[in-house]
Amino acid sequence: MKFDYLKKYVRTEPDYPEKGVMYRDITTVLKNREIFKSTIDAMNELLQDVDFDMVVSPDSRGHIFASPIAYLNSVGMEIARKPGKLPCETIEEQYTLEYGTATLQMHKDAIEKGQKVVIIDDLMATGGTIQAIIKMIERLGGEVACVCCFIELPELNGREALKGYDVRSVISFNEDEV
Amino acid sequence: MKFDYLKKYVRTEPDYPEKGVMYRDITTVLKNREIFKSTIDAMNELLQDVDFDMVVSPDSRGHIFASPIAYLNSVGMEIARKPGKLPCETIEEQYTLEYGTATLQMHKDAIEKGQKVVIIDDLMATGGTIQAIIKMIERLGGEVACVCCFIELPELNGREALKGYDVRSVISFNEDEV
Repeated sequence: MKFDYLKKYVRTEPDYPEKGVMYRDITTVLKNREIFKSTIDAMNELLQDVDFDMVVSPDSRGHIFASPIAYLNSVGMEIARKPGKLPCETIEEQYTLEYGTATLQMHKDAIEKGQKVVIIDDLMATGGTIQAIIKMIERLGGEVACVCCFIELPELNGREALKGYDVRSVISFNEDEV
Repeated sequence: MKFDYLKKYVRTEPDYPEKGVMYRDITTVLKNREIFKSTIDAMNELLQDVDFDMVVSPDSRGHIFASPIAYLNSVGMEIARKPGKLPCETIEEQYTLEYGTATLQMHKDAIEKGQKVVIIDDLMATGGTIQAIIKMIERLGGEVACVCCFIELPELNGREALKGYDVRSVISFNEDEV
């Protein structure tokens, strides 16, 4: 894939946060000035044929990618947060974690009817977080134009969970890749 | 002040999260495509005479401002996070909240000796979060070139807590402003 040269700048930390997990650490991408810029430019290039009015990202690393993409495309940005973090009227969706569930909220006035939205996050694993955001955007009358992540872990089947949506990623890692 | 026209796009939510607090909600700034762009451009203009190699922002809204500033200036970005969120070796600092204390961590390899760093956040209140980040940057051998926030609440005396540092903000609100 075109942007695979970026993969070597991602630091892989084995057995974090628990044994058997290969954690993909993006801080080594962010702190490298050339590679940080190339990463944002790569994501922006991936989205050049997508027509959108708004980006939405979940706390907290999603914002690192979503914000410059919003800036470069002169669109607005909305944030999906854990309960109790947004001051005005919200809607919420639960999603499943490995153990138990979690909840994300968005402001009720986050999206206007008919707005075309790109959901942006740093990493797509099972797609659970993104499914929750899709539900909220659609409840608010928005249209999900694309889902775009920096890193995809294809073995966790996020694309299957998001079937019917346009899912794009800059780079991807199989579990056994070091 | 030059950027005061941006103030009317900040939504003030009275009595959130508790009675007597005037919460300054930036989501209304972010979702407005023209104003979002103008806000990032304003912060970038504020920093044009600052020589820096790196930006550092705390989870999570700090990243919304720090990331496009890093992009526009072709510098790297580091993130300060709550304990347990960074996979590699970290250093940490505690800071005081209204009730109790909180802790922030950064990776030990976040900053190289002599790097000039701009700390970026959405809002400066008492300056406690920023003080903790300053301590970590200096322990790692970095030099704090500037502290830059979108919103300053001057009555909470953040500037006094950060005396000796170059503190800048795009806009500021007194408590009684609606």
